[in-house]
Amino acid sequence: MDNITIIAVTSIITAGFTTGIGTMMPAIGEGRAVSKALDSIAQQPDAAPTITRTLFVGLAMIESTAIYCFVLSMILIFANPFWNHFLG
Amino acid sequence: MDNITIIAVTSIITAGFTTGIGTMMPAIGEGRAVSKALDSIAQQPDAAPTITRTLFVGLAMIESTAIYCFVLSMILIFANPFWNHFLG
Amino acid sequence: MDNITIIAVTSIITAGFTTGIGTMMPAIGEGRAVSKALDSIAQQPDAAPTITRTLFVGLAMIESTAIYCFVLSMILIFANPFWNHFLG
Amino acid sequence: MDNITIIAVTSIITAGFTTGIGTMMPAIGEGRAVSKALDSIAQQPDAAPTITRTLFVGLAMIESTAIYCFVLSMILIFANPFWNHFLG
Amino acid sequence: MDNITIIAVTSIITAGFTTGIGTMMPAIGEGRAVSKALDSIAQQPDAAPTITRTLFVGLAMIESTAIYCFVLSMILIFANPFWNHFLG
Amino acid sequence: MDNITIIAVTSIITAGFTTGIGTMMPAIGEGRAVSKALDSIAQQPDAAPTITRTLFVGLAMIESTAIYCFVLSMILIFANPFWNHFLG
Amino acid sequence: MDNITIIAVTSIITAGFTTGIGTMMPAIGEGRAVSKALDSIAQQPDAAPTITRTLFVGLAMIESTAIYCFVLSMILIFANPFWNHFLG
Amino acid sequence: MDNITIIAVTSIITAGFTTGIGTMMPAIGEGRAVSKALDSIAQQPDAAPTITRTLFVGLAMIESTAIYCFVLSMILIFANPFWNHFLG
Amino acid sequence: MDNITIIAVTSIITAGFTTGIGTMMPAIGEGRAVSKALDSIAQQPDAAPTITRTLFVGLAMIESTAIYCFVLSMILIFANPFWNHFLG
Amino acid sequence: MDNITIIAVTSIITAGFTTGIGTMMPAIGEGRAVSKALDSIAQQPDAAPTITRTLFVGLAMIESTAIYCFVLSMILIFANPFWNHFLG
Amino acid sequence: MDNITIIAVTSIITAGFTTGIGTMMPAIGEGRAVSKALDSIAQQPDAAPTITRTLFVGLAMIESTAIYCFVLSMILIFANPFWNHFLG
Amino acid sequence: MDNITIIAVTSIITAGFTTGIGTMMPAIGEGRAVSKALDSIAQQPDAAPTITRTLFVGLAMIESTAIYCFVLSMILIFANPFWNHFLG
Amino acid sequence: MDNITIIAVTSIITAGFTTGIGTMMPAIGEGRAVSKALDSIAQQPDAAPTITRTLFVGLAMIESTAIYCFVLSMILIFANPFWNHFLG
Amino acid sequence: MDNITIIAVTSIITAGFTTGIGTMMPAIGEGRAVSKALDSIAQQPDAAPTITRTLFVGLAMIESTAIYCFVLSMILIFANPFWNHFLG
Repeated sequence: MDNITIIAVTSIITAGFTTGIGTMMPAIGEGRAVSKALDSIAQQPDAAPTITRTLFVGLAMIESTAIYCFVLSMILIFANPFWNHFLG
Repeated sequence: MDNITIIAVTSIITAGFTTGIGTMMPAIGEGRAVSKALDSIAQQPDAAPTITRTLFVGLAMIESTAIYCFVLSMILIFANPFWNHFLG
Repeated sequence: MDNITIIAVTSIITAGFTTGIGTMMPAIGEGRAVSKALDSIAQQPDAAPTITRTLFVGLAMIESTAIYCFVLSMILIFANPFWNHFLG
Repeated sequence: MDNITIIAVTSIITAGFTTGIGTMMPAIGEGRAVSKALDSIAQQPDAAPTITRTLFVGLAMIESTAIYCFVLSMILIFANPFWNHFLG
Repeated sequence: MDNITIIAVTSIITAGFTTGIGTMMPAIGEGRAVSKALDSIAQQPDAAPTITRTLFVGLAMIESTAIYCFVLSMILIFANPFWNHFLG
Repeated sequence: MDNITIIAVTSIITAGFTTGIGTMMPAIGEGRAVSKALDSIAQQPDAAPTITRTLFVGLAMIESTAIYCFVLSMILIFANPFWNHFLG
Repeated sequence: MDNITIIAVTSIITAGFTTGIGTMMPAIGEGRAVSKALDSIAQQPDAAPTITRTLFVGLAMIESTAIYCFVLSMILIFANPFWNHFLG
Repeated sequence: MDNITIIAVTSIITAGFTTGIGTMMPAIGEGRAVSKALDSIAQQPDAAPTITRTLFVGLAMIESTAIYCFVLSMILIFANPFWNHFLG
Repeated sequence: MDNITIIAVTSIITAGFTTGIGTMMPAIGEGRAVSKALDSIAQQPDAAPTITRTLFVGLAMIESTAIYCFVLSMILIFANPFWNHFLG
Repeated sequence: MDNITIIAVTSIITAGFTTGIGTMMPAIGEGRAVSKALDSIAQQPDAAPTITRTLFVGLAMIESTAIYCFVLSMILIFANPFWNHFLG
Repeated sequence: MDNITIIAVTSIITAGFTTGIGTMMPAIGEGRAVSKALDSIAQQPDAAPTITRTLFVGLAMIESTAIYCFVLSMILIFANPFWNHFLG
Repeated sequence: MDNITIIAVTSIITAGFTTGIGTMMPAIGEGRAVSKALDSIAQQPDAAPTITRTLFVGLAMIESTAIYCFVLSMILIFANPFWNHFLG
Repeated sequence: MDNITIIAVTSIITAGFTTGIGTMMPAIGEGRAVSKALDSIAQQPDAAPTITRTLFVGLAMIESTAIYCFVLSMILIFANPFWNHFLG
Repeated sequence: MDNITIIAVTSIITAGFTTGIGTMMPAIGEGRAVSKALDSIAQQPDAAPTITRTLFVGLAMIESTAIYCFVLSMILIFANPFWNHFLG
């Protein structure tokens, strides 16, 4: 393998690994948050607006960790500085 | 193996790994959210519309992490910039 | 191994891995959703139609993650662009 | 090993792995669903027909993920396009 | 190792792995279903016939996943198409 | 190693692995079923005959998965078609 | 290593592995069954004979899976057909 | 591989690993915190402002651990002192 | 390494592994049984003789799985038929 | 690889590993502390100041373990004595 | 390495492994038994003598599994028949 | 690699590993202690001073295990006797 | 490596492994016993002397398993018969 | 690598491993003991002196297992008999 192939292979594998692994736990965390929100609404329907608003803020925070991973993968595939260096 | 084969092999493996692993936890998270929704509806049937609406928003958020993985796999198989570079 | 064999071997392994691993957690998630639905029906038989409808929507969402994996495996076996490139 | 042997070996291993691993979790999911159904029938015998019907729909959904794996294994053993290509 | 030995070795290992791993979780699932059935009979002796009938249907569904694995192992040992191809 | 030694070694390892691993979970499943049966008898002594009968049917089903593994091991040691082929 | 040494080494390792791993879960299963039996006797002393009898049948079933492993190990050490073939 | 390629490859892999692994647990931790906040609001709606404020401080603390990982990855990709040394 | 050394090394490792691993779970199982016995005695002091007697029978059964492992290790160290064959 | 490259590669990998792994559990620990704080505020709103103050001290203690890891990574990247030795 | 060194190295590693691993679970089991004994004494102080006596018998049984491992290690270090054979 | 490089590489990796792994569980332990303290304050606000004081002593004990690891890492990086020996 | 170095290296690694791994579970077991003792004292202050005495006996038993490991490590470092043989 | 380097490398790695791994579980055990102590004080403030005293004795016992590991690491780094032998 020449150098540019190695960089390409590494970028592909790392991008897949990062997204594949890094989105696992946000899904769990969001599932837990959503299920508790549903529980809370059923228990206290009057507080539904407050619960829903807090839920959305929380989901945004949790989703952000998944997005870090996805952004990193996109950087590695479409805006990889090492790849650009070797292409240049 | 010449370089283009290596890129192809890496892309295939990474696509499979990312989708195979990355869709595991969303399934768990959705299962937890759905089961809690059913629980909540049984406990408070009057709040069913609010619960169902919140559930669907939540499922969409959770599903999004699975879709990140599937999209990444599709990019690697059908729109892989490294593959296109070596083909060019 | 020549190149086309490597692609074939990789595709077979990845297809099997993706389907074998990727369908594990949907089965768990669906099992949890179904078991909770049964619980809820027993607890609140009057809400059975709402519960059943929500259950089916939820099962469809969860099943979708298993189907992503199965579709990816089918693509790798029967419509693999890399395989087609090397055959061409 | 010549190429055709490699394809055969890979197909055998992948078929066994996919079925062996992929049927684990459906068994767990079905066990959970069945055990909850029995629980619900004991708790609310009057709802037995509804519970049984929902259980069977759910078992079919869960079994489907095991069948994806078994079908993929059968394809790899008896209708493997890569094997047919090398035999041809 | 010549080719036919490789096929034989692979078939033996895969058959053992598939049966050994694939029957683990059905045993757990059935154990859970049976134990819940006993619980339910103790709680509601009048519903014993319904419970027993549902239990047997459920056990059959769960056992089916173990049988997929056992059947695949038997195919690999006694009706292996790849082995037959190399013997021919 | 010549071919027949390889077959022998593989058969020994696979037989041990299959039995060693494959009998783990049936033991757990049976332990759970038995312990629940004892619980149920203590809770509802009048239902002891029904419970015992259901327990034995269930234990037979669970034991069957362990027996699949043991039978496969015995086949590999005493009636191995690949071994017989190489001896012939 | 000559062939007969390989067979001996493999038999020793497999015998140890099978017994070492295969007796783990029966011990857990029996521990669970015994502890539940003690619980049940404390809760319902009058049912002690029925509980004890059911416990012993259950322990025999669970112990059988450990005995499968021990028997297989003894066969490999003292009545190994592959070893006898190479000695002959 | 020459030295600069090794540095590039290592940086890519480490960046992906650090972000992929390091954002898993913050997602879980945030999910737990959010779900408990929703629970608390449902239980004590009058304390919602205090709960929300404490939640946001806590989420910021937890998110900080994910940000450490993401920052480290960005340093490795865009401001890597070792890479700059070898480029110089 | 000559053959007799290999046999000795293998026997030492296997003996240690079998005893080290195989006595783990009996210890857990016995711990569970003993702790439940203490619980039961505290709850129903009048049934102490029955509980103690059942406990001892159960401990003997559980200890037997640990003894299988220890016996196998002793056989491998002090009465190893393969070792005797090579010494002869 | 020459020596200075090895030091650079090792430092990159270790920095990533230490931060990636070492920040996992603090996130969990903080999540648990925050969620319990929210629970306690909901249960005893009058004690909110004491709870909040204790929470912040505790979070600082837990965060310190994550900071140890991040500091070590920063030392390895920007103030590595071994790197400086080889550069000198 | 000559043969006697190999035997020495193997004995050292196996002795450490067996004691290190094999004493883990007895510690857990004893911890569980002791903690339950304390619980039972607090609940039923009058039964303290019976509880203490049963506890000591149980601890002896559990400790015996740890002692098997320690004895085996001592045999391997100070009374190793294979070592003696090679020294002779 | 010459000797001094090996020592440097080993020290870097070990320092990172020790801190990265060794600070995981203290974070969990402290999280558990803090969360229980908050719980106790909410339950018994009058005992807050005693609880806080005991908590701080306990946190110091737990933090000490993390500090052992961090100190060892600092010794390996800044006061390594083996490194000094080879430099001398 | 000459023989005496191998023995030294093996002894160091085994000593560290045995103590590092073997003291894990005693710590857990003691933590559980101590925490239960505190619980019991809080629940039944009058039984504190009996509880404390039983706790100390139990801690001594549990600590003994950790001491087995530490003693074995000390033997390997300071009184290693194999080391002495090779030095002699 | 010459012999003295090997001893140094081994000592560094083992010291780090032993401290890194061996201090994990004491932290957990202490966390559990401390959290239970806080719980007990909140439940029975009058018994605080007895609880605190028992807690400190228990923490000392648990900390001792961590100290075994730290002492062993210090011996390996600063008073290693094998290192001294090779230096001599």
